[in-house]
Amino acid sequence: MSELYPQVAFNADGLVPVIVQQYDTREVLMLAWMNETSLQLTLTEGRAVYWSRSRKELWRKGDTSGHTQAVHAVSYDCDGDTLLMLVDQTGAACHTGSRTCFDDRFLPLTSGAAS
Amino acid sequence: MSELYPQVAFNADGLVPVIVQQYDTREVLMLAWMNETSLQLTLTEGRAVYWSRSRKELWRKGDTSGHTQAVHAVSYDCDGDTLLMLVDQTGAACHTGSRTCFDDRFLPLTSGAAS
Repeated sequence: MSELYPQVAFNADGLVPVIVQQYDTREVLMLAWMNETSLQLTLTEGRAVYWSRSRKELWRKGDTSGHTQAVHAVSYDCDGDTLLMLVDQTGAACHTGSRTCFDDRFLPLTSGAAS
Repeated sequence: MSELYPQVAFNADGLVPVIVQQYDTREVLMLAWMNETSLQLTLTEGRAVYWSRSRKELWRKGDTSGHTQAVHAVSYDCDGDTLLMLVDQTGAACHTGSRTCFDDRFLPLTSGAAS
């Protein structure tokens, strides 16, 4: 259990998924992961800092791209195993240059369309 | 790699996280997990079906509570390792009875407030 954040249930790898949402438009921008240190940095700096699972290092969002995220609020869910973070995104959230990481990539629904 | 959904990068446990968002208000309701079978059922039935990691079984959302989720769209992110699903939520998304799983559980920001 995290001593700093006992509310948060980090997984076996010491990570928690973070849903990142633009605070005003409510667009879902991306999903990223934090360890305890990156969460602490995020809360104290007011700027999103993640854990890069591919590079296995802290990832201060925007250091390379300039596309920083100013943090407005961080909440945890009923199980404590997911965070929801409201941010103000500068520029593109996605490394592809898209506003969000979910732009125009749909899986086909084969059921009748929901009403 | 999934033969049915090569766009989706299921993790080592065969699961992918799904951000669930109310299609009209854009509230983030919850994060859940799907395996290939639950994704296929979701897309063909037009109703959210997840994989319960705690019970290790398919979880047809709402079978017990009546709080079903009608699926409007499912998209995958730039890496294919996260899904974003727009739904129309009947009743409460959270098993606690709250509208969302993130209601009023905030971590304190110790930085100056973001503007």
